[in-house]
Amino acid sequence: MVQIPNTPTSADVARLAGVSRATVSYVLNNTSAVRISEATRRRVREAARELGYVPHAAARSLRAGHSRMVLMPAPAIPVGPLYSGFLSDLQWALGRLDYTVVQYGSVGLQGDEAVRAWAELRPVAVLVPGAGLGPEGVVLLKRSGTRAVVTLGPGRVDGAHALLMDHEAVGRCAGAHLYERGRRRIGVVVPVEPGLDAYALPRLAGVREALRGTGTGVTELPLAYTEEAAAEAAAGWRAAGLDAVFAYNDEYAMLLMRALQDEGLRVPEDVAVIGADDLMLGRLLRPRLSTVHIELPSGRALAELVDRAVRDPGGEPEVHTVLGATVVRRESS
Amino acid sequence: MVQIPNTPTSADVARLAGVSRATVSYVLNNTSAVRISEATRRRVREAARELGYVPHAAARSLRAGHSRMVLMPAPAIPVGPLYSGFLSDLQWALGRLDYTVVQYGSVGLQGDEAVRAWAELRPVAVLVPGAGLGPEGVVLLKRSGTRAVVTLGPGRVDGAHALLMDHEAVGRCAGAHLYERGRRRIGVVVPVEPGLDAYALPRLAGVREALRGTGTGVTELPLAYTEEAAAEAAAGWRAAGLDAVFAYNDEYAMLLMRALQDEGLRVPEDVAVIGADDLMLGRLLRPRLSTVHIELPSGRALAELVDRAVRDPGGEPEVHTVLGATVVRRESS
Repeated sequence: MVQIPNTPTSADVARLAGVSRATVSYVLNNTSAVRISEATRRRVREAARELGYVPHAAARSLRAGHSRMVLMPAPAIPVGPLYSGFLSDLQWALGRLDYTVVQYGSVGLQGDEAVRAWAELRPVAVLVPGAGLGPEGVVLLKRSGTRAVVTLGPGRVDGAHALLMDHEAVGRCAGAHLYERGRRRIGVVVPVEPGLDAYALPRLAGVREALRGTGTGVTELPLAYTEEAAAEAAAGWRAAGLDAVFAYNDEYAMLLMRALQDEGLRVPEDVAVIGADDLMLGRLLRPRLSTVHIELPSGRALAELVDRAVRDPGGEPEVHTVLGATVVRRESS
Repeated sequence: MVQIPNTPTSADVARLAGVSRATVSYVLNNTSAVRISEATRRRVREAARELGYVPHAAARSLRAGHSRMVLMPAPAIPVGPLYSGFLSDLQWALGRLDYTVVQYGSVGLQGDEAVRAWAELRPVAVLVPGAGLGPEGVVLLKRSGTRAVVTLGPGRVDGAHALLMDHEAVGRCAGAHLYERGRRRIGVVVPVEPGLDAYALPRLAGVREALRGTGTGVTELPLAYTEEAAAEAAAGWRAAGLDAVFAYNDEYAMLLMRALQDEGLRVPEDVAVIGADDLMLGRLLRPRLSTVHIELPSGRALAELVDRAVRDPGGEPEVHTVLGATVVRRESS
């Protein structure tokens, strides 16, 4: 058995430093409202260090009324390289502004229950990707002291700042491009993996919208991210008679393109293929993969919006469209 | 200007429900030690709902002495698909055991300063990937009430449970495989991207160890993850006279293999190439990429260790070796 040391309290620090508990609290929370000599401050800090005393962020935020914590629900699905890079960026940019990013794993919590769990941590700002927050959630967060709520998703939510990410635009781009390349029977991959519908269905809708009234057929193609599923889709390709495919993203596109090639179909002559995300790996294949380049907001711009919103919690919500989508044509389309 | 509602307090709830604040606290924190009628409990819950009152996790953990929060420092670098999948898994498994995973962005905080910031949130368990925690850090966390500290990395830290991830084993595997394939002048890619040394250097050391005394040359190859850098490395390849490369992971391997092929080198005849991580995309290239398959611990096993450790905070630290490494030979080596 390992002996666990007793948790030191602020009373222990006060005793060792020979001051009151209130003085300990003033010093360790950097309260400037109270005059305390530099010598006393030093004595308190040394006592705290000696005892290994750490103030309780919770207690501190109870007194201060807020924290420097920016809470983000953690994604429930494995994230791709694009989002992972964006998160690192954002974390760094918020860190420079003295905020701490906390990604909260809400697995198993739904709707209001999740929002309540976030609110319990009393974050100063909440940044919600996707579409999981309603206007009641915003009110609940604000009532609990959250100064800024920012959504990163397809639509606006009352009371929250919105960074609009229009995934239909990704599909519109891809659909218009394939049409320009002379394709008239277009498949659109919709991954069967859970959690991706929020991105895949708007992309499909975007393709349909771009091709409305052109007489071009759009076929939804459910696809699992496995070689077997891709081989099966490729085996039925000639029968389906599709001359192009927008494959949801580059990973599905690379998988499907290889299966089509193995089936003896020529890319792009028989089937034009386009992905999305502009991963470097797509450039390594032959033919080089065409893609939709997606521009996420810069971490720095988003961090600055959060900071602005925290400083002016009563301000009018800002709305920005942040997702840029442009076709990068290579050899596969 | 948007009107922000006032934050309701437990006093407001008490007033509306016609009970004392203590009763509100007992009911909303599910304290079973005190007898309160079901009717009263219902009245309190309804009043809380009506006012939008959310208890403060911090205040609750101040009273209870601990939380259900499992804190993990968030990785400062974009994570690959292997780690991203592992995190989702772990989050789900801990969620099932009623823990909440919080990934804490410690950007800019170093050593003790980071540990102090974690401790301020009073997590019940802390899970530290990598090698950033020392024994003093463990003491500090335990003094602040953390019941379980688990490291996921190359070595043991006094007082903490350890899941040993031996990245040298990845290099040993790759080195032994290339030697068996008859290669005697082996390059090992070390990415120049920041944050990867913690994995890349042990992998390099593993290759050297596997080949010690065999007369095989091992050359360290710094490489940036860009097509330009790969093309440059490929252009100098013949002069360097290397007949094989262990390319750190599959992504660097795919990048470098393409550049070598574009330079007119045959894979594997002129250069054998092996990566690591066993990404599906490596199977889509021609030749198919050989790789080291890495087995991370299952999220469920790790969640169960955390739970055991939380229940028995004085128990002897457990040590498990969790990283399995096996060569998957395909066509590139």
